Amino acid sequence: MNRKEIIEQIKLKKTFLCVGLDPDIDKIPNHLLEEEDPIFEFNKQIIDATADYCIGYKPNTAFYEAYGLSGIASLEKTLKYIKVNFRNHFLIADAKRGDIGNTSNMYAKAFFNRLHADAITVAPYMGSDSVKPFLQFENKWVIVLGLTSNEGSIDFQQQKTATGEQLYLNVIKTCSSWGTDENMMFVVGATKAQMLMDIRKIVPNHFLLVPGVGAQGGSLEEVCKYGMNKDVGLLINISRNIIYAGKGTDFAEKASAEAKKISLQMHSFITDATLDKILPG
Amino acid sequence: MNRKEIIEQIKLKKTFLCVGLDPDIDKIPNHLLEEEDPIFEFNKQIIDATADYCIGYKPNTAFYEAYGLSGIASLEKTLKYIKVNFRNHFLIADAKRGDIGNTSNMYAKAFFNRLHADAITVAPYMGSDSVKPFLQFENKWVIVLGLTSNEGSIDFQQQKTATGEQLYLNVIKTCSSWGTDENMMFVVGATKAQMLMDIRKIVPNHFLLVPGVGAQGGSLEEVCKYGMNKDVGLLINISRNIIYAGKGTDFAEKASAEAKKISLQMHSFITDATLDKILPG
Repeated sequence: MNRKEIIEQIKLKKTFLCVGLDPDIDKIPNHLLEEEDPIFEFNKQIIDATADYCIGYKPNTAFYEAYGLSGIASLEKTLKYIKVNFRNHFLIADAKRGDIGNTSNMYAKAFFNRLHADAITVAPYMGSDSVKPFLQFENKWVIVLGLTSNEGSIDFQQQKTATGEQLYLNVIKTCSSWGTDENMMFVVGATKAQMLMDIRKIVPNHFLLVPGVGAQGGSLEEVCKYGMNKDVGLLINISRNIIYAGKGTDFAEKASAEAKKISLQMHSFITDATLDKILPG
Repeated sequence: MNRKEIIEQIKLKKTFLCVGLDPDIDKIPNHLLEEEDPIFEFNKQIIDATADYCIGYKPNTAFYEAYGLSGIASLEKTLKYIKVNFRNHFLIADAKRGDIGNTSNMYAKAFFNRLHADAITVAPYMGSDSVKPFLQFENKWVIVLGLTSNEGSIDFQQQKTATGEQLYLNVIKTCSSWGTDENMMFVVGATKAQMLMDIRKIVPNHFLLVPGVGAQGGSLEEVCKYGMNKDVGLLINISRNIIYAGKGTDFAEKASAEAKKISLQMHSFITDATLDKILPG
């Protein structure tokens, strides 16, 4: 899925919501536990219920790997289900991988070719040869961890480098030189919305994948204020607030209502002027 | 497996070799391709042939994930095979994971409880809450990426921070304060052997997992000179030079011979004086 197609979807649906598919067997509704594959069934119903209100899905692979082979099978089925039934949705494998070149290349093949993901999240610590292999696939994306939304981002990401800038800015600046705004995005946690200003000075055109709105306390308004560009340039990921909006047999309806609500909020932050700029027609 | 047990194995076998199980279907001997699970069969024969000359195994999970469900099954079988048949060998899942706290905890359960790994490699970029969940498991280890052996380590790891020290030293210093030398190790690439001196000033007692000797050009002699401590304190991982030492039906014998050769070289770097210091008796 290329940049133009992503922007078209945003314009069409007037939303930049991405739904995080992080199923936890202890949290999904009881009645699903009787299904042959409760995790896939949960995801399937969440996807069917939210597809109209989002432009993409982001399964965090840890939530599947935790269940071993059956979990990986649920992940594969989920990705395939989206690709077959909702082919215009952007599919992010939140895997946070990163290894030496040859090994990163194996991960790229696994996630892009085998699992049909459009994008994968990558940790930057190992540097260029851990990131570049992911950039060699047409219409696929690498989403580099820039500034994450967790407490621990203070330990290294927010520490100053010798040039006086914080490490996350250095990471975003350096990594952005390896790719383009057509094949690279950055993870930027919403809990640090003001830092978006500094980031936008470095990468004004790149899309940013923003976790942390909602459950982690980030403000949609602030993220839009400081992070939006002429193409919107934001994918806001929300997981728990949507997928666990309800706990009973009506969990999918509740998820749908929550996704719709957030989507309408997003709409209000995209001005008509912005939408006009995005794409002609 | 605790620190004392690891040191006992080093003393017993007079080696600190760890064999990297990174099977590539394009490189394993042709005659194995007829097996039901060629990757497991390859690993099994490598393990049987090298167990006497090493103290641990390190499968890089990418090499299994690349083959989807069947690859994950091969990984699970491999880990179980080692745990059942060679229970004194140290088992490292080279997964380079790292996510927000709750998610890291899911990874920890997956690798430590389900897959029986003794240790997992972890990327430090996301900070404390991405590392600490792995430290909550008794007799299990987190091996934090410090200074990796690849080219890209120059991009961020070797950049100076505001305090004048390089990022990898800052990472090792900070992370070492979260755990102890009983539950944390660091990855330190052998291609930068002199940097081991600086690292040893910060973590004199920790074990270091050292990739990059052999195929990547690192020198065993230099690593021992600068990295060894009174408990040896090194696990040297070698993969390709051992597992692909032969390409025919005698691949396991060739692997055995190569592991034995390296192991004897290691023996020559452990002085009797060092061995005496390791453990009484």
